[in-house]
Amino acid sequence: MKRVYNFSAGPAVLPEEVLKEAQEEIFDYADTGISVMEMSHRSKPFEKIITDAEKDLRELMSIPDDYKVLFAQGGATTQFAAVPMNLMSENKQAAYIETGNFSKKAFEEAKIFSDKVRIVASSKDRNYTYIPDCSDLPIDEKDDYVYICENNTIFGTTFKNIPNTKGKPLVSDQSSCFLSKPVNVSDYGVIYAGVQKNVGPAGMAIIIARGDLIKDAEELQFPTPTMLRWKTYSDSGSLYNTPNCWSIYICGKVFKWIKSIGGLEEMQKRNEEKAKILYDCLDSSKLFVNGVEKSSRSIMNVVFKTGDPELDAKFVAEAKDHGIISIKGHRIVGGMRASIYNAMPKEGVISLVRFMEKFEKENAR
Amino acid sequence: MKRVYNFSAGPAVLPEEVLKEAQEEIFDYADTGISVMEMSHRSKPFEKIITDAEKDLRELMSIPDDYKVLFAQGGATTQFAAVPMNLMSENKQAAYIETGNFSKKAFEEAKIFSDKVRIVASSKDRNYTYIPDCSDLPIDEKDDYVYICENNTIFGTTFKNIPNTKGKPLVSDQSSCFLSKPVNVSDYGVIYAGVQKNVGPAGMAIIIARGDLIKDAEELQFPTPTMLRWKTYSDSGSLYNTPNCWSIYICGKVFKWIKSIGGLEEMQKRNEEKAKILYDCLDSSKLFVNGVEKSSRSIMNVVFKTGDPELDAKFVAEAKDHGIISIKGHRIVGGMRASIYNAMPKEGVISLVRFMEKFEKENAR
Repeated sequence: MKRVYNFSAGPAVLPEEVLKEAQEEIFDYADTGISVMEMSHRSKPFEKIITDAEKDLRELMSIPDDYKVLFAQGGATTQFAAVPMNLMSENKQAAYIETGNFSKKAFEEAKIFSDKVRIVASSKDRNYTYIPDCSDLPIDEKDDYVYICENNTIFGTTFKNIPNTKGKPLVSDQSSCFLSKPVNVSDYGVIYAGVQKNVGPAGMAIIIARGDLIKDAEELQFPTPTMLRWKTYSDSGSLYNTPNCWSIYICGKVFKWIKSIGGLEEMQKRNEEKAKILYDCLDSSKLFVNGVEKSSRSIMNVVFKTGDPELDAKFVAEAKDHGIISIKGHRIVGGMRASIYNAMPKEGVISLVRFMEKFEKENAR
Repeated sequence: MKRVYNFSAGPAVLPEEVLKEAQEEIFDYADTGISVMEMSHRSKPFEKIITDAEKDLRELMSIPDDYKVLFAQGGATTQFAAVPMNLMSENKQAAYIETGNFSKKAFEEAKIFSDKVRIVASSKDRNYTYIPDCSDLPIDEKDDYVYICENNTIFGTTFKNIPNTKGKPLVSDQSSCFLSKPVNVSDYGVIYAGVQKNVGPAGMAIIIARGDLIKDAEELQFPTPTMLRWKTYSDSGSLYNTPNCWSIYICGKVFKWIKSIGGLEEMQKRNEEKAKILYDCLDSSKLFVNGVEKSSRSIMNVVFKTGDPELDAKFVAEAKDHGIISIKGHRIVGGMRASIYNAMPKEGVISLVRFMEKFEKENAR
C-alpha cells in the first residue's frame, strides 16, 4: 500500500485513521455481521450512527439548540435551489455577494425562481482575487436573505469577516471551509456545506438552519419537491427516506477525529500553520505567484502560478513523481492549486514546499 | 469477522466479493495512492470508473443507444418529483397506477405540480395484495406519461406484465427489482431505481430515459432545480457537479459481479429458484401465510405472517439468534418480510426456511 499527498479540491483527502476504521468495519460493523452499506437506515445501529454524528457536530460547532442539523442528499449544487425554494417565503427577493464561480452559480440558480435576486457586491472586476467590502451593503428591506460563498475553492479567497446583513438572515455556503475553524453559528441564518471537501464522501450536504427559517410546505412560494424542503429533514431527523448512510457514517468518524485532536480551535491552529508554510514559500519565491489579496487569502485552497502555462504543466507533471497529486489549478484560472483541507497533514505541505523550492532552483529564469 | 444473513429491504445485502474488493482498495485504489472517497471526480481513474459502470450496465440490460443512463444524487423519492418536473412538458397530465406505498407517494408528489394527475388503476381495495389488470386502462390522449412502481417492496407484489399504456411513455420505478431479471428497455420511456436495494450504497438513483423524453430547460413547465433536470446529467455524463462517487464505484463492481455470474438471465434463474424455495415453504406451512395473489408474487420481497402479532415478534427475535436479521415486516403491514435481492445467497434462503420449519414445529397450534 502506497499513499500519496492528495491536494485535490474535492473529493479530497480524508484522515487515514478514518479510512483505517472504515476498512476494518466494512464486512462487520460493530458486531452486527453486516456492512454499514447494507444496513437498514431504520435499524438501531444506524440510528446510533446518525444520532452520534449530529451530537458530535453540535458539540464541535457549539450549535445553539434553536438551530436544526440536516443531512441532505445531493451536494451544494442541489442546495443552490433549495436556498431560494425554502427561504423566499416572503418577498421572493434576495441579495447575493459574488466572489467566484460558486456564488455566481448559486445566484443563477436563484434566478430560476425569481427575477428579484440581485448581486449587491462583487469582486469580478479583479477576477475574484479579493473579498469585497461588505460592511455597508445595499440591503433592501424586502430581502429574504443575504447569500455568500464563504471560501472560494477555485480562486483561493475567503471571508475573514462576515458581511453586515443589516438584520437579514445570512446564508453561507461553507463547502470548502466547513469545520476548518470555529464559527459563531448564531451569526448565520443558514450554514450549509457539500461534505466532499472537508468532511466525507461526496453525495451529501449538511445544513445548519435556524429553526424559524425552516418553513412548512404551505408557506413556500414555489412547487417544491419534498426532498428539497428542509422541513422534510427537520421533521424526520433526516430519515424521511433512505439517506446517504455511508457518507453520514464517514462524516461521523471525521467529527470524532476532529474532537480527538482537540476540536476546532486546534484544527484552526493546524490549518493556519500549514497555510503559513505555503504562503511564506510563495511570498519568498521568485518563480511562483499567489495573485490573491493578502487579507483575503484562504487557509484551505492556496492558488499559485509561474505565469508560464508550459512551466505550470511541467510542475504538475513532475509533482506527481514526488508523490504530490491533484495540484493542477481549476481550468477557469489555470496554474496550480493546493487544497490543504483538515485531513492534509503538515508533512504533506512541507513535502510540497520542498518540491517547489527544488523546482524553482531547477527552473530559475 | 462474522457475517449474518441480512434480509433487509434496503439498504440491503451486497455481494461479499464486492465488499472484499472495496476493503482491499480503500486506501489505495488501482495504485493511485488514494481512496475512491478522496478522488477528484474529474480525474482519469474516476472517469474510468463511471465510464465502465455505464458501459457494463448498458451491456447487462442491452440498453438501446437512444436511451441515456444517468447517475443522479438522491434516491427514488427525489425522482418522484423529477418525473413530473421533466415529463409534464406537454399537458401537465399523467396517469398513475397505485399498487402500494411508493406509487402512492409518487402520485402525491406529482400532485404538488399539477392537479391533472390521476389514478387509473389501484389495488387498494384489497390492501395492495395484487397487481390490477392493466390491459385496458382509461389512458387519456393528453397524458404525458403512465407511471408504475414495478415491484412493491412493502407488499411483496410485482408486475408480471407491464401495462398497456396505449402509446404513452411508461415510467417505472424499479428500485426493488432493478437488475433482478432481463427487461426489454424499449418497452419503457423511463426506468429508474434508487440503488440501495439491489445495486449499491444508498444516496443515488440510476435513470434510464429515452433520449426524446429528456427536455431542455426552456421546455419545462415548472421552475426546476438544475440538479433535478435530467438534461443536466445527460449533457455532462452525470458529471455536472460532484456525483456520489462512492456509490457509482460500488454499483460498478456489482455490475461486474452480475456479468461474472452470467448476466441477467442467470440472475433471474437464481432469484426465481430462491423465491420458489421460500414460497414452497409458505404454501405448505400451516403456520405462516403469504397473503399475496399468486400471480402477483414478487421474487424480491416475500411477505408472510402467522396472524398473531406476538408470535410474529417471537419469530423475528428468535431469527436473530439463528443469524437471520432484518426480517421484520414494514410497519404498515406488520408480520415478516424476507428481501431476497440479487446478493442474497441461496444458502441464506435455505437457512431461513430451516428456521421457519423449526419454529413452526415448536409453535404448532
